[in-house]
Parts: sequence; C-alpha cells; structure tokens
Amino acid sequence: MITALDHIAIAVVSIEEARTFYENLGLSVAGIEEVEHEGVRVAMIPCGGSRIELLEPLSEDSPVARFLERRGPGIHHLCLKSDDIDADDCSLREDGVELLREQPGPGAEGATVQFVHPRSAGGVLVELSEPAGSRS
Amino acid sequence: MITALDHIAIAVVSIEEARTFYENLGLSVAGIEEVEHEGVRVAMIPCGGSRIELLEPLSEDSPVARFLERRGPGIHHLCLKSDDIDADDCSLREDGVELLREQPGPGAEGATVQFVHPRSAGGVLVELSEPAGSRS
Repeated sequence: MITALDHIAIAVVSIEEARTFYENLGLSVAGIEEVEHEGVRVAMIPCGGSRIELLEPLSEDSPVARFLERRGPGIHHLCLKSDDIDADDCSLREDGVELLREQPGPGAEGATVQFVHPRSAGGVLVELSEPAGSRS
Repeated sequence: MITALDHIAIAVVSIEEARTFYENLGLSVAGIEEVEHEGVRVAMIPCGGSRIELLEPLSEDSPVARFLERRGPGIHHLCLKSDDIDADDCSLREDGVELLREQPGPGAEGATVQFVHPRSAGGVLVELSEPAGSRS
C-alpha cells in the first residue's frame, strides 16, 4: 500500500549549483550519496514529511545524463512510499501495469524499489520505494 | 518559509482516465475543483502529508493544454507550502529569482500562490502556496 509521497526527483547538471535555489528558500541538503548502479549522485532535501531529490549523472552514459541531453534539467520522476513493495509489485502486474524491473531491487538509502513505465502512469515515471529495514 | 512539499502537479488529458492508476494503488481523489482563471480542472489526491494534483485543461487555449500539446502528459510543476508567501515573494525577488506574477494571487482551494520561472529553478516550474486562512 502507498503511504506517502516519498520524494520528487529532479535531474540536474550539478548538485552544487542546483541546491542554492532550495537553500535560499530555507531548505537544507540532508545527505549526498552515490548510487553507482544507477549512475547518479543523489542529494536529499527534506521538505515537511516528503523530500526533494536532486539527481546528478556520474557519467555520460547514465540514464540521467541521457534525460538531461534529451529534455534539459527538470523533474525526472516521483516516488511513492510503499509499506509492502512485493505486494504492490504483484498487484500492479495483475492490473497489467508495465514495470521496469523484473522484480523490486536496491535503490538509494538501502530502500527496495520498483519503477512503473510512464506508458502505464499517464506519462509519469513513478518509483515505488519501501524504506530500508521495513521489508519482511 | 517553506514548510512542506504541498503537491506535485501532473498534466493529464482526462482526470477520469488518469485517476485509475492512483486508485489502483489504494489512493483516492479527495475533491475536484475548476480554477477558471487558470483554465484547469483540478483533482487532489492526498498521499501521506502531501498531495498529487491532476490538472486537466478546461479549453484548448489553457496553459495546461499547450503543455500537453508540446510535451504530452506528465509532471507539470511542484508546489512548496509557504507559511508567509509575501515574505518569500520578497526574499526571492531580492535574490534575483524570476517570478511569474507581479505579486502573489489566488490559486486552487483559496490559497495564495506565486510561481518561480523554470529559468530560476533548474528547469522546474515551482509554485509557492500559502493555504487559505493562514494569511495575515
């Protein structure tokens, strides 16, 4: 089940440049992490009960680098927090929703994640994420 | 000051079609409203402490209709909740941030809103919103 809007992810050329706009609004970067298998450096900015995630490509062949090349910097995806990613994965498959991974797998911060293809979600890349430590 | 990620807005051709994906995930539409001066029909889907907003154009010359024509359905903007929209408006102007309205004005649900031009916010259309009833 979906319990929250976990984060909204924004593709940026440079975290160092992009963070200034949010910091000027009084928000702060809580942590920066490299997620090598997705080819990104990730900065998390808490905002109330949700977060803004800045995604900077680690290399030119990273999917985020290709997104930047195609569309320029901007909103990349939204992430919904799940309390049972395996059950949601299963139920979405039953509804005929197109998922990007064969099964839920590792994401940032040790979470277990799955992605819904934009074709199945009104043009939006939707990530589902079950936080680390909550998976049975 | 920014206190929360108020909502993430998604441009859709039809609220009736787009809501199904979120309803299949166990989320519900809390209310639908027409905001005539912005040319949109708005469906709000609460999600934890934040919301997903579906935006359907009311006419072909609505800004959301033009967005759909240019880019197709997808994420349109993000909205940050402000506890003092006039102070944030003022401080952003002092920082040289480009704002779309001369001053904060009416938005959905009786809120007072301002928009930051994507040029000033890393390619993202950012709405700032102070909820109805909280404005001094």
